[in-house]
Amino acid sequence: MFSHVKELQYNAKPSQPDPVYAKKLQEILGGQYGEMSVMMQYLFQGWNCRAESKYKDMILDIGTEEIAHVEMIATMIAQLLDGAPAHDQEQGAKDPAVEAVLGGMNPQHAIVNGLGAQPNDAAGYPWNARYTIASGNMLADFRANLNAESQGRLQVVRLYEMTTDPGVRDMLSFLIARDKMHQNQWMAAIEELEQTQGAVVPSTFSTEHEIQDVAYSFMNFSEGEESSTGRWANGASLDGKGTFEYVQNPGANGQKPELKPSPAYIHGTPPLDMRIMQNGGGIQPNQQ
Amino acid sequence: MFSHVKELQYNAKPSQPDPVYAKKLQEILGGQYGEMSVMMQYLFQGWNCRAESKYKDMILDIGTEEIAHVEMIATMIAQLLDGAPAHDQEQGAKDPAVEAVLGGMNPQHAIVNGLGAQPNDAAGYPWNARYTIASGNMLADFRANLNAESQGRLQVVRLYEMTTDPGVRDMLSFLIARDKMHQNQWMAAIEELEQTQGAVVPSTFSTEHEIQDVAYSFMNFSEGEESSTGRWANGASLDGKGTFEYVQNPGANGQKPELKPSPAYIHGTPPLDMRIMQNGGGIQPNQQ
Amino acid sequence: MFSHVKELQYNAKPSQPDPVYAKKLQEILGGQYGEMSVMMQYLFQGWNCRAESKYKDMILDIGTEEIAHVEMIATMIAQLLDGAPAHDQEQGAKDPAVEAVLGGMNPQHAIVNGLGAQPNDAAGYPWNARYTIASGNMLADFRANLNAESQGRLQVVRLYEMTTDPGVRDMLSFLIARDKMHQNQWMAAIEELEQTQGAVVPSTFSTEHEIQDVAYSFMNFSEGEESSTGRWANGASLDGKGTFEYVQNPGANGQKPELKPSPAYIHGTPPLDMRIMQNGGGIQPNQQ
Amino acid sequence: MFSHVKELQYNAKPSQPDPVYAKKLQEILGGQYGEMSVMMQYLFQGWNCRAESKYKDMILDIGTEEIAHVEMIATMIAQLLDGAPAHDQEQGAKDPAVEAVLGGMNPQHAIVNGLGAQPNDAAGYPWNARYTIASGNMLADFRANLNAESQGRLQVVRLYEMTTDPGVRDMLSFLIARDKMHQNQWMAAIEELEQTQGAVVPSTFSTEHEIQDVAYSFMNFSEGEESSTGRWANGASLDGKGTFEYVQNPGANGQKPELKPSPAYIHGTPPLDMRIMQNGGGIQPNQQ
Amino acid sequence: MFSHVKELQYNAKPSQPDPVYAKKLQEILGGQYGEMSVMMQYLFQGWNCRAESKYKDMILDIGTEEIAHVEMIATMIAQLLDGAPAHDQEQGAKDPAVEAVLGGMNPQHAIVNGLGAQPNDAAGYPWNARYTIASGNMLADFRANLNAESQGRLQVVRLYEMTTDPGVRDMLSFLIARDKMHQNQWMAAIEELEQTQGAVVPSTFSTEHEIQDVAYSFMNFSEGEESSTGRWANGASLDGKGTFEYVQNPGANGQKPELKPSPAYIHGTPPLDMRIMQNGGGIQPNQQ
Amino acid sequence: MFSHVKELQYNAKPSQPDPVYAKKLQEILGGQYGEMSVMMQYLFQGWNCRAESKYKDMILDIGTEEIAHVEMIATMIAQLLDGAPAHDQEQGAKDPAVEAVLGGMNPQHAIVNGLGAQPNDAAGYPWNARYTIASGNMLADFRANLNAESQGRLQVVRLYEMTTDPGVRDMLSFLIARDKMHQNQWMAAIEELEQTQGAVVPSTFSTEHEIQDVAYSFMNFSEGEESSTGRWANGASLDGKGTFEYVQNPGANGQKPELKPSPAYIHGTPPLDMRIMQNGGGIQPNQQ
Repeated sequence: MFSHVKELQYNAKPSQPDPVYAKKLQEILGGQYGEMSVMMQYLFQGWNCRAESKYKDMILDIGTEEIAHVEMIATMIAQLLDGAPAHDQEQGAKDPAVEAVLGGMNPQHAIVNGLGAQPNDAAGYPWNARYTIASGNMLADFRANLNAESQGRLQVVRLYEMTTDPGVRDMLSFLIARDKMHQNQWMAAIEELEQTQGAVVPSTFSTEHEIQDVAYSFMNFSEGEESSTGRWANGASLDGKGTFEYVQNPGANGQKPELKPSPAYIHGTPPLDMRIMQNGGGIQPNQQ
Repeated sequence: MFSHVKELQYNAKPSQPDPVYAKKLQEILGGQYGEMSVMMQYLFQGWNCRAESKYKDMILDIGTEEIAHVEMIATMIAQLLDGAPAHDQEQGAKDPAVEAVLGGMNPQHAIVNGLGAQPNDAAGYPWNARYTIASGNMLADFRANLNAESQGRLQVVRLYEMTTDPGVRDMLSFLIARDKMHQNQWMAAIEELEQTQGAVVPSTFSTEHEIQDVAYSFMNFSEGEESSTGRWANGASLDGKGTFEYVQNPGANGQKPELKPSPAYIHGTPPLDMRIMQNGGGIQPNQQ
Repeated sequence: MFSHVKELQYNAKPSQPDPVYAKKLQEILGGQYGEMSVMMQYLFQGWNCRAESKYKDMILDIGTEEIAHVEMIATMIAQLLDGAPAHDQEQGAKDPAVEAVLGGMNPQHAIVNGLGAQPNDAAGYPWNARYTIASGNMLADFRANLNAESQGRLQVVRLYEMTTDPGVRDMLSFLIARDKMHQNQWMAAIEELEQTQGAVVPSTFSTEHEIQDVAYSFMNFSEGEESSTGRWANGASLDGKGTFEYVQNPGANGQKPELKPSPAYIHGTPPLDMRIMQNGGGIQPNQQ
Repeated sequence: MFSHVKELQYNAKPSQPDPVYAKKLQEILGGQYGEMSVMMQYLFQGWNCRAESKYKDMILDIGTEEIAHVEMIATMIAQLLDGAPAHDQEQGAKDPAVEAVLGGMNPQHAIVNGLGAQPNDAAGYPWNARYTIASGNMLADFRANLNAESQGRLQVVRLYEMTTDPGVRDMLSFLIARDKMHQNQWMAAIEELEQTQGAVVPSTFSTEHEIQDVAYSFMNFSEGEESSTGRWANGASLDGKGTFEYVQNPGANGQKPELKPSPAYIHGTPPLDMRIMQNGGGIQPNQQ
Repeated sequence: MFSHVKELQYNAKPSQPDPVYAKKLQEILGGQYGEMSVMMQYLFQGWNCRAESKYKDMILDIGTEEIAHVEMIATMIAQLLDGAPAHDQEQGAKDPAVEAVLGGMNPQHAIVNGLGAQPNDAAGYPWNARYTIASGNMLADFRANLNAESQGRLQVVRLYEMTTDPGVRDMLSFLIARDKMHQNQWMAAIEELEQTQGAVVPSTFSTEHEIQDVAYSFMNFSEGEESSTGRWANGASLDGKGTFEYVQNPGANGQKPELKPSPAYIHGTPPLDMRIMQNGGGIQPNQQ
Repeated sequence: MFSHVKELQYNAKPSQPDPVYAKKLQEILGGQYGEMSVMMQYLFQGWNCRAESKYKDMILDIGTEEIAHVEMIATMIAQLLDGAPAHDQEQGAKDPAVEAVLGGMNPQHAIVNGLGAQPNDAAGYPWNARYTIASGNMLADFRANLNAESQGRLQVVRLYEMTTDPGVRDMLSFLIARDKMHQNQWMAAIEELEQTQGAVVPSTFSTEHEIQDVAYSFMNFSEGEESSTGRWANGASLDGKGTFEYVQNPGANGQKPELKPSPAYIHGTPPLDMRIMQNGGGIQPNQQ
C-alpha cells in the first residue's frame, strides 16, 4: 500500500514558462528511459521478487522514490506550459517570436492536455510497458536497471545543457545526483550477486549443455581486424572461466536450409510442377 | 555493405515438427530481448559510432553475427511448423491431440505466415524499434548490451528446459554458448571504458552542478528497514568517490505544488468564481 | 512524494495456483481499463490539476489507492503462477492436464517474467499511455473516470464468474466494492460540477459560434425509424437549454469535394493531359 | 450495408491553405478522441448490440454520421495542405516565412501522404483500435461515449481558438454543435438506463458478494484532508443505496507478501544458500 | 456523407457457435490485411484523391462496400461467440471439452467485449492506421490495394479450410468472390495507368538525375548464382526502357565511414585522449 | 550467415550538416516503407521460402542489399547531425537561425541518440514488424514488394526535391535508380508467376466454392455513376476468365442482424424485462 505526501521530494519551479522546452523535457518523463520506466520497472520487480526480503524492500524503496520523480517532472512541465500562446493572434499582428514558440511546441500540450504534462516522450509517443523488464532473475534485472539509470542520467545531463533556466537546472541537478546514486546502487547490488553466483546469467545452467568451442570466441565477420585489439579478444574471460580467442574467419557450420513445400490447405506457392499444369485444373484442397 | 553465405552459422534442424513450441520460440526471435533486438541495436550503435575504429568494427562484427542468429531461429521455426494441422477435421473424427495443437499454436502462423516464422514475440506482438538504444555514449550502450545478452540467454535457457527435441536443443546449446561469450565481451568492453573514464555515465558532467547531499544516499521510503543491510547502503560507493549513507526518513524538500488556472482560450475547468456565475453568461474567449 | 507500506491494502492469496487464470487476470492489471490505467490517469490528472485544492487532493488520494490495487493484483498473479509446469515432460509421460495448462497459459509468464506478473493485458499486449487522459477540464475527465470505473468493475465481475477459488474471489469482492465506491465518487463529483457550470463540455464556449440548427437534432441515417422512440429524440434536452428533434432525412449541406492537383514536386498522379503525353517527355520538376 | 452520398454533410472549405494548422487539425481526425474513434466505437457497439432494436438503430445512426465527419475533416486537411511549400528553395533566397511553415508542418504530410490527410493524430501517431470500447454493457459503453464526445468537443473548441480562418471556423461551428447534441444524446440514453437498472455498472452483480464495509468509503491516502469537503465524502451515495463515509487513516488489511522461490527450471535468482555454494557446482535442472 | 441499410450485404449466419474459430476469424476483420484495413485505406485514398472524378468515385464505391464487409464479419463473430462457456464450472465436474474451448478462445472476447467482435487481429493485437497508405500517387496506391486484396483473399481462403460450418463457409465464399473481383479491379486500374504513364513509380522523375549504371542491374550478394536464372536477370526490363544485367560481384563504391566526435554538450563517449586523462578533471561543458 | 564489408555500397556524404533535413530523411530509414521495412520483409520471405532455390536466393540477395541501404542512410543522417546546436545559447544572444533549426529538428536526435540515426520515421514513430509481410504465397508477397518499392521510390523522390545538397542528392540518385531496378525486378518475377499459375491469389482455390454471381461485378455504392467509365467496369476481366459487369444498385442480400442476449454470467445489458424489475432484486448469476 502507498501513501502520498503533498510536498514534492525536491524543488520543481521554473524561473519562467518555456513551452518549447516542455516538449523536450517529456523525454525523461514518458520516454523509453524516463522516470515512468524506472518507476514501473522497479515496482514490478519488487512485487514479483522471490528472493530474500532485503532485496524486495530495497527495490520497492527505490520504486517508490521514482513515483516522486515522475511527480516532480510532471509538475515542472505544467508550469513550463503556463500561459503558452496556444491560440491565434489577430491577423495583422503576428509576432515572429510567438510563431517560433508555436512551431516548436507540441500542439497536443494545448489541444489534448490543456497545458498539462502528458505520459509521452519528446516525440509525443506514448509510454508503454515493453520499456520495462521483470524477469525473475535479479542479476539480469539489475543489469537492466543499471542500464536504465545510465541512459536516464545521460538524457537528464543533455537536457541540462539545453536550458539556462536556474529553476529547471536546480531540479535537474537533483535528479542527476540521484541517478548517480542509483547507478552506484545497482553496481553494488550486482557486485554482491556476482560474487556469490558468478557473472554469467543465468548461473544455473550446466556448461555441459553448451557448445564449449564457441563460448569464449570473438568472431570477426568483416574483412579488416581492428576488432582484434580490444580487451574482448585477449586474455582471461571476465567470468574467470575461460580465455578469449579471436577467430579471423568464422565458418558456417550449419546446413544450407531447404524447406518442404507447405500442405495444400495452406495455399502457399504451389510446387513447380503443379504451378505449371495448374491452368488446366490444379489442386483443390477444399473439395468436400 | 553485407554479403550472404548460404549455409547457416550452426545447425538448425528440429527432430520433428512442434507448432506449439514454434509459438514459444518466437520470443527469442522477435521479442523484447530476441535476436532481432540485438541485431538492430548493434548495427545502429555501429553505424552511429563516433569513437575509434576498433569499437565500430567490434560492434558491427557482433551485429553481423546476430543477423545469422535471426536466420537460424527463423529457419528452425519454419521447420517446426512443417505440416501443422491448420485445417478442419471431418466433423465426426476430431482428434483430441490435433485439437490440443490447434489450441496451443499461434493461428497467425497458418493464416498470415503460411507456416513461416514471423517477426513477432511469443504473444504475437510485433517487434518494434523502441526495444533498442544507440545513445552515442558507449558505456551506457554497452550496459544496455550486457543487459540484452543477460535477458536473452535467460530466455534461451528457459526455452531449452521446455523441450526435449535433440535438434532444437542442439541449436539452443550453440546460442547459449554464444550468449555467454557476448556477456563476457560486453563486460570486457565495459571494464576497459570504466578504467579510463570512471563508472558513472556520463563521466563528463561536472560534479559541482550536482546536489552533492543526495549523490550517495540510499533513501528508505517504507516503514521497515530490511533495505539497510545490503552493499548499496554501506561502505564506499562503487565509483570510488563517495560513501553510501542510509537515510531512514527521507524528507520532502520541495514545494507543495499549486498551479495557476489556465488561460480562457484553453477551456479548462474555469476558476471557482467563474464556474458559479457561469449560467448567467460566463466567459466567452472566442468572441471576435 | 510517496511512501510504501509493506502490507497490502487487502488480502491477495489464492487458494491454489492456476496459471491459466493468471493470464486472464492480467486484463484488470495491464489492460485498457485495468488498474494501471486508472492509477496513471488519476496521478496525471492530479499533478496537472489547476483547480482548487480539494480536487487535487481527492484525485491524488484515489490515484494513490490505485497503486495499491496494482500491487495486490500483481501479487496475486505471481502466486497463481507458483510452480507452473513450464518445462517439458519426459517423452513417454505427457500428462493431458499439464498439456492443457501449458496450452492455456501465457508462455511469456515463464519465458519472459519467470513466473511473475507482467504489465500487459490478457492478450499479452503491453499497457500504454494512450489508455489515459488528463485534459485539464475536470468535467470531461471525471466522465472519463466514471467510464473507466464502469468498464473496470464490469471486467472484475466477469473475472469473478470465471473462477471458484475462494482466495481469488475474496480479493475480487474487495475490488468490486471499491469500484462501486469509485463510480459513486465520480458521479458525485460530476453532479457538483454540472450544477455550477452546466452539463455540456466545455461550458465556456459561446453558443453564438455554434450552428444552432443542428445542436439538438437526432439525425436518422438509415431507412427504418426504430431510433425515433428513445429519450434522445423526444422532450427537453438534458442540458436544459433545448428540445430534441428527430430528423428523418438529414440532407447533405456541404460541397461535393474536388481537390486541386498537387504541385509537380509532390509527384502525385499527374493531371490527365500530362499523364498521357508523358512518355514523350513529361514534367521534370527536379531539373536545376 | 452502407451507401455513399457525394456531397459532404456540411461545408468544409478553408479560406486559404495553412499546412501548420493542418497538422494540428489531425488530432480530431485520428487522435485518441478524434472522429475515427467515435466512428469505430459506435459502429462496433452497434454491430455487437444484443439489446432491443431501438438501441442498435440509434447507435448505428450516429456511427454512420461519424463517418461523414471523418470525411469532412479529411477533406478540409487536404485543402489546408494545397500547395504546401514542401521543397527546397534556392540556396540564396530562403524566406523566413517559408522556413517557419516548413518547421511547423508535419513532414509526413508531404513525404508520405502527398498533401493528403493521414489517419493519425497531431503528433503523427497512428490511430489504433485500443482507443475504442464495445463491452456489451450499454450503460458502461454510453459512459464511454459521453466521455468521448466531451473530450472531443473540448478539442474542437481549442482548435477553434487556434485559427481565425472563417472557412475552418464554419466547419468547426458545425462539429461543435453536433458534439453538443451527442453529449445530450448519451446523457439521455444513460438517464433512461439508470432509471430502470440503477446507476452502478454492472447492475446484475449481487451485493452479497461485495465487501460491504468499503463500498461507500472515501479513503484518504495523504496527510491533509482537503479531500473531505467534496460531495464524494458526504451525504447519500449517488446510487441511492448507501452513505458516503470519509476514512481518515485507511489501514492496510492484507498480508505482507512473500513469494516462494521459483522452480529450478525457471532459472530465477537461486535461493540464498544455493547462490553461495554455487561456484562449486550449483543446481543443474537441465541434466537428463 | 453516408447512409446505413439495415440488411447485410450477404448472409452472415453460422450454423453453430464456435468461440475458438471466432478468435481466428478476427484476422480478416482487424488484422494487417483485414477488412478494416481496406475500408480505411480506400476511404482515405478517395477523400484525398486529386485526380479526375471517375477515380475518386470508384475508390469510394469500393471503400463503402468494405464497411459492409466489416459489418458482416463482426456480426458473424458475435454469433460464433453466442453462449461461449466463459465462466467457471463446478469444481468436481470440469468438462475437458469446455476446457479445450476455454484454452483456445480469446479471453478478451468475454472479459472485454462481452461476447462481441473486437477491432483486433487473431493475436488480439489492435488494428492501427499504419496498416494503410494513401500517398497521393494512384499507381503506387493501386499496387498497395492489389497487394491488400491478394493477402486478404489468401487469408480468407485459409480460414475457409479451417472450418466445415456451412454458414461460415457461405459467407466466406462470398468474400472470396468479391476479393477476386477486387484483385481484377485493381489490376485493371493499374493497367490503365501504366499504359499512359509508364510502369515505374513515380513516372515524373527525370532519369538524368538517376545513377543510370545501376538502374537495371540485379546484384548478387551471395556466393552461389541460383538467382541468375530468373526473368529478373535476363532480357528487357519490364518498363520497356532497359535490359536486365546480372552483376556477379557487386562492389562497394562508397566511403569507409568515419564520423566526427560529437560536441562536448552531447556527452557522448569522449575522444580517446580526453577519456584517458579524465579522472584528473576532464571536460566540463556545462560550466557557466 | 552474413559478413560485413566496411565500405558503403555507394557514397553517403552530405556537403554540410542539416539537422532539420535529418529528421525528414528518417522516413526512408525507419518509416512504413523505409529501407528497414524492405530489408526485413525480404529477409523473412527468403528464410521462409518453400519454393525452388532460385527464388530463395534472389529474395535473399536483395534482402542483403537492403541492409546496405539502411547502413548508407544511417551514416548520412549521423553526418547531417554533425555539430547540431542542441544546447542553449546565452540568454541575450539568441540567433533566429539557430532557433529555426532547434524548432524544426527532432529533439530526440540529441537527447536520445546523441546525434545518431534512430530506427524511427520522420514523426519519431518507431519501426515495427507489422510493416512487413511474409505470407508463404510468393505471388501475394511479390505484389507487396512491388508496392513497397513503389511507395519507397516515391518518398525518396520527394525527399530529393526537398534538398539541394549535392552530397545528399548523389546518394538519393543511387537509391532512386536501385528502386527503379527493384520495381522492375518484382514486375518480372510477378509476370513469371502469373504466366504459370494465373493472376488471382491464391490460384489454388476451386471456383466452385466461390459465389460466382459477384466474382466480376463492380458495385456502385453511391448515387452518381462516374465509376462506370473505367476499365474496371468494362470488358474482359484481367484474369482472363470473366467479364466485368457494372451493378448500378447493388442490393442487400443478407439478413437484418439480430443477436441473442448474452448469458447472465457475462453481465451485458440485461434483457428489457429484467432491466425493469431489477431494482427489486434482479438476476444474480454469481450465487453459489
